[in-house]
Amino acid sequence: MAVVAGVMEQQKKPATLDALTQLLRADLDLVNLLIIERMQSPVALIPQLAGHIVAAGGKRLRPMLTLATARLCGYEAAPNERPRHVALAASVEFIHTATLLHDDVVDSSDLRRGLATANAVWGNKASVLVGDFLFSRAFQLMVEDGSLRVLEILSRASAVIAEGEVLQLVTSNDTATTEADYLEVISAKTAQLFAAAAQIGAVLCDRPAREEQALERFGRNLGIAFQLVDDVLDYSARQAELGKSIGDDFRDGKITLPIVLAFHRGNEEERAFWRRTLEQGEQREGDLETALELLRERGALRDSMARAAEYAEAARAELAIFPDKVEKRALDEVIDFCLERGY
Amino acid sequence: MAVVAGVMEQQKKPATLDALTQLLRADLDLVNLLIIERMQSPVALIPQLAGHIVAAGGKRLRPMLTLATARLCGYEAAPNERPRHVALAASVEFIHTATLLHDDVVDSSDLRRGLATANAVWGNKASVLVGDFLFSRAFQLMVEDGSLRVLEILSRASAVIAEGEVLQLVTSNDTATTEADYLEVISAKTAQLFAAAAQIGAVLCDRPAREEQALERFGRNLGIAFQLVDDVLDYSARQAELGKSIGDDFRDGKITLPIVLAFHRGNEEERAFWRRTLEQGEQREGDLETALELLRERGALRDSMARAAEYAEAARAELAIFPDKVEKRALDEVIDFCLERGY
Repeated sequence: MAVVAGVMEQQKKPATLDALTQLLRADLDLVNLLIIERMQSPVALIPQLAGHIVAAGGKRLRPMLTLATARLCGYEAAPNERPRHVALAASVEFIHTATLLHDDVVDSSDLRRGLATANAVWGNKASVLVGDFLFSRAFQLMVEDGSLRVLEILSRASAVIAEGEVLQLVTSNDTATTEADYLEVISAKTAQLFAAAAQIGAVLCDRPAREEQALERFGRNLGIAFQLVDDVLDYSARQAELGKSIGDDFRDGKITLPIVLAFHRGNEEERAFWRRTLEQGEQREGDLETALELLRERGALRDSMARAAEYAEAARAELAIFPDKVEKRALDEVIDFCLERGY
Repeated sequence: MAVVAGVMEQQKKPATLDALTQLLRADLDLVNLLIIERMQSPVALIPQLAGHIVAAGGKRLRPMLTLATARLCGYEAAPNERPRHVALAASVEFIHTATLLHDDVVDSSDLRRGLATANAVWGNKASVLVGDFLFSRAFQLMVEDGSLRVLEILSRASAVIAEGEVLQLVTSNDTATTEADYLEVISAKTAQLFAAAAQIGAVLCDRPAREEQALERFGRNLGIAFQLVDDVLDYSARQAELGKSIGDDFRDGKITLPIVLAFHRGNEEERAFWRRTLEQGEQREGDLETALELLRERGALRDSMARAAEYAEAARAELAIFPDKVEKRALDEVIDFCLERGY
């Protein structure tokens, strides 16, 4: 027993978000209060439905990026003023929540964070409209903050996210999708908001362009790594152990990197399998198991994780120009956390 | 024949949007160019789908309100600068188009402006995402313009519109809906954008609060009248003659003012009919004809039009404080046009 414990202690402890959440606890509580305050409406269904997805919690990863980069850049709220980084972090989370609600509209994923999707409970239209409401609230928060630069960054990010989502829709079911196509999709639909969330921390503090751009690239690379891991997790035994559904992407015919790799490395028979299941959408019992086996045999999950690790290291490199502060160390652990989820 | 022609000539000519569109021709051409320019994207489906709904034309009523009120307030573009009222008019139209696309998601109206809805052609998700893209583009245009006041007005309007749409969803199929409930819905989902579109004309010119508020109320009352007429038209023989489908609201179980009036004035048998068809959604052949007959017998369409006329006159009264300019006369005719569509 003692030996085993000794071995365990020598191993690196698994990375968590704990350092970051503890560091940002007070800020994060304010973000959560603000989110609850601003999702209110006399139309009862709005806080009801928004509360469902907001209360489901999530990791608040994106707003934490804004909070942490603002602090990394030395942000201090003026006395008697609502901290600006809190308002903008809430705005970022509202944009994220709106895209989740809109993403639910067609995706038949029945589990998100282990709860039934809002769409499954209240229907398509309510999800769309409440998403619109939250999206508008995001802009109202930015307008109150008053920075046209932040408005520029986040309105552009919103447009790019929508473009990415449409591109994903277009490449769905298309086995001709290349790795470059896939990267274009996830850079837009996921990494753009990570990038914007991290960048506005520097904008708030009027930091030089060099730091602003470093944080933008930090967020972008982290976002790509995060999405790559997410797409691996959809085929992961570990995800299944956590009670989350696996194979959602497979059933939806989504062409993620693991599929791109397995398809291109596969023989004719394997390609026929992918074409039947993903392009023609003809799925039979046992197909998911076959898919999992092919992904493993072709090293598709392993190599997708390797790609994620490359982006994670690129994210880490961007932090180099910042002083060694507690926020930097916490952000560094976030990178590890995003990656380790996938192993 | 000569006698008939004489009688015709003596009657007031029907009101049209012609005076306004001719007055604003040059501005409107710039708005249309800007709309086409800003709906572009490397993701081909976006301009394709957006073009479908934008090219379908519509009356461009809302952007024309911004153009006309700006001119009424004396707006002149600075030389070598893109006219601000054009950019904001395009922004207003993008918000409107986004709400149309999102509104299509659940409404089973198969005809809008005589064309198949984007949703019917490209599916739910594409409509939602392209709507999001256009909505983001609207904010990008506002950010480029740089007025936080305009951003405040239009981000608030967007939130209120979403609230109104959700409220409409909630009151759907509920015959207990009152006239007050109905007015709350249309004030939010339709009149708020009319109000904002008209108000920002004054904001652009830094006009005193009195004029800004007068134009806001002008737009609000006009918007309510416009929606009331729209809801009457859904049961109108004239609409049927124009080749537009009628009875969409009836089939969707939407509780508009004609229904509220007919239900409250109806006897027990009639109420049972409305409950069956709208609340329980049990519709049989011949039900729409019965509904049309009951609406006529109970004076529901006539009295809804009377209500629309009251709001139209309230809109007209708000123009009183403005000098007698060609823009004012054109806006005055817009009021008549909105109303006369219903007769």
